[in-house]
Amino acid sequence: MSVITLLTDFGTTDEYAGLMKGVILSVNPDVTIVDITHHIDPQDLIQAVYILHASYRYFPEGSVHVIVVDPGVGSERAIVCVKTKGYILLAPDNGVLTLILENDEIESVIRLDNSAYFSENISQTFHGRDIFAPVAAHITKGVELNKIGSPMDPRELVRLNIRKPYLSDTGELIGSIISVDRFGNLITNIDSATLERFYVSHKRAGPQREGLCIRIREKEITGLSRSYADAAPGYPLAIIGSRGFLEIAVNCGHAKEYFGMYNKRCQGEICSLKIK
Amino acid sequence: MSVITLLTDFGTTDEYAGLMKGVILSVNPDVTIVDITHHIDPQDLIQAVYILHASYRYFPEGSVHVIVVDPGVGSERAIVCVKTKGYILLAPDNGVLTLILENDEIESVIRLDNSAYFSENISQTFHGRDIFAPVAAHITKGVELNKIGSPMDPRELVRLNIRKPYLSDTGELIGSIISVDRFGNLITNIDSATLERFYVSHKRAGPQREGLCIRIREKEITGLSRSYADAAPGYPLAIIGSRGFLEIAVNCGHAKEYFGMYNKRCQGEICSLKIK
Amino acid sequence: MSVITLLTDFGTTDEYAGLMKGVILSVNPDVTIVDITHHIDPQDLIQAVYILHASYRYFPEGSVHVIVVDPGVGSERAIVCVKTKGYILLAPDNGVLTLILENDEIESVIRLDNSAYFSENISQTFHGRDIFAPVAAHITKGVELNKIGSPMDPRELVRLNIRKPYLSDTGELIGSIISVDRFGNLITNIDSATLERFYVSHKRAGPQREGLCIRIREKEITGLSRSYADAAPGYPLAIIGSRGFLEIAVNCGHAKEYFGMYNKRCQGEICSLKIK
Repeated sequence: MSVITLLTDFGTTDEYAGLMKGVILSVNPDVTIVDITHHIDPQDLIQAVYILHASYRYFPEGSVHVIVVDPGVGSERAIVCVKTKGYILLAPDNGVLTLILENDEIESVIRLDNSAYFSENISQTFHGRDIFAPVAAHITKGVELNKIGSPMDPRELVRLNIRKPYLSDTGELIGSIISVDRFGNLITNIDSATLERFYVSHKRAGPQREGLCIRIREKEITGLSRSYADAAPGYPLAIIGSRGFLEIAVNCGHAKEYFGMYNKRCQGEICSLKIK
Repeated sequence: MSVITLLTDFGTTDEYAGLMKGVILSVNPDVTIVDITHHIDPQDLIQAVYILHASYRYFPEGSVHVIVVDPGVGSERAIVCVKTKGYILLAPDNGVLTLILENDEIESVIRLDNSAYFSENISQTFHGRDIFAPVAAHITKGVELNKIGSPMDPRELVRLNIRKPYLSDTGELIGSIISVDRFGNLITNIDSATLERFYVSHKRAGPQREGLCIRIREKEITGLSRSYADAAPGYPLAIIGSRGFLEIAVNCGHAKEYFGMYNKRCQGEICSLKIK
Repeated sequence: MSVITLLTDFGTTDEYAGLMKGVILSVNPDVTIVDITHHIDPQDLIQAVYILHASYRYFPEGSVHVIVVDPGVGSERAIVCVKTKGYILLAPDNGVLTLILENDEIESVIRLDNSAYFSENISQTFHGRDIFAPVAAHITKGVELNKIGSPMDPRELVRLNIRKPYLSDTGELIGSIISVDRFGNLITNIDSATLERFYVSHKRAGPQREGLCIRIREKEITGLSRSYADAAPGYPLAIIGSRGFLEIAVNCGHAKEYFGMYNKRCQGEICSLKIK
């Protein structure tokens, strides 16, 4: 029993995600298909980068992850198959794999150019259905990766410029909000290892991060919480979230609204950390 | 082939529901996973209570129902496994099982405290992925319930105060709107048995409930319909809906808008029934 | 391993789609269920007609397609099972199969009237759960179609009036927008064969359709694109979309907004084609 996951910007109102599943099952009826999400904002590659990175390692080893956020569909952009230690990823070569390439050991990269594994008729606008889906299904049936296309050097793959946290001149750690989830939690780009290094550099210790002071939109949060309920209802808190990154939340509330952020993905919002 | 259902407030835009499936399939690749819904309003326990109660008995006997509407995640609240005659339910002990506990025979209750069946790393904010998902999957693999934690007395479980219909001083049956569905149908808390008792108490009979008069927002509906099409297009009607409760609908229309209700879930809206 | 697809207007916030799956799996635990979409606008038969037609042939041969857009539920409308060369379709007899009936060879039509294959209790408002789901599941278990009801003449089935493109007095090809997808692409009712005939009738050739001029909302697009990227970012283009119909799109943009269309499905919007 193999697993194929789907991560797209197709939404679920149109038939697009359903058709990918129909094509996959036509090639391999025994595969289990899981939606990671189809609600990436249309063509928002950065959002897809983060969701993919937060997701792919929670699936059974050998799963095939299919990512179709593909504004260049039908143009000369390549479609690539990247094999890491545990997973196979199919994606347009548009940078959506950036965090995988930065963090994982890449075993091989193939450019999909063997149309023998594509559908018979290739539309100009829906390679998800006509190329990604049948190739993914053939891979789960055991087709070797070197059959589906030609090898590529991983260094040739498109990479996006992903914002990293940095130390300011005054020694503060400056992070960005990179995502807002359904609950209004503000997810930063500061991972727990970066936070730990920053903390240790101030010769402090302790799981609650005593002295830690997080400033966001002129408001200050002190210390790290271990659960949302550590703050009183309606009050903000900072916590290491499920992706392993620092999150700003409001207990029983909606942090994005609390902080008066109206931009959809809170792009450009920053937070600064210091140790008192 | 076992079934695990998911009922959460995670939405489908973030990766959360997908990750629960990845973890489940990593433990038991042969399970069939069904979404009941992920669109419970964030932390709306009452809505989850009703949807769960309307749903769980339509699945194959032995199905494991996983409910993650969990504002207290990471706090001291327990996670419990409740075994009824036909089903196994995993939920936070926050009252989301209230209607199950009121209506079903409870065979056993276990407090999940054996971390051997949890994921290796437990986040502070996403027990759905790190505790509920792996435990559910292990149960479908045949792990005995007394292995996953310690027994609890069902009477210790948290229960919510669920509004019931009641008789007014003037002999009217007073119900509340408890839910609005996608079609704008107003679902009340008056089940068909309660309605029958009220009707019979007036020494009346007949499937169309002659003489029944339902008042809602200063408007009156007389009798029960047997299909939406019993009313003229655009006109309101009362009908026993698919959950077995009295519903107010508008044929080819949207009852919530028809009655000018703007509150999202129509909380606080009541309807009163009398027999003329 | 059999496939059942679901195409409904139930949305995914309520429990309705989940319950259909529960009932199906209770009858046949080995079936694979795929959502085409549950987001048809409530009772919008025309939208369902087009999505069904764009979808059904991408699934494994023998798949059972279940369509529940059913404003007449509980009334005298029939539920029918239509067998085409490759597929079995279950739907209310309300015209939702119109394009299938127009384009496919119909092998047989059965009116579902054998309640032996229904659920035990039939609600008045949710035949999706109580009739469609169990009958579909029984079909995938091999129950012969002549067991589930009585034969009907295909000519008796309800058909909707579907807008077709036509030639104007001045020789222009007049099409309508029939659908808008998540990306804002405007999907017309002009299929590639109709476009080809129109083009050839002007004694022209060439894949880019030189001389083709498409007028929509006082704006003109010339020629056909082969990918969205053929137009500059923010500029409109015409392309044969994945359904095989002419689509109007905006590269990296949203055609519906670009053309200032505010009506939800752009009903009534037309486009006219001429060859210069």
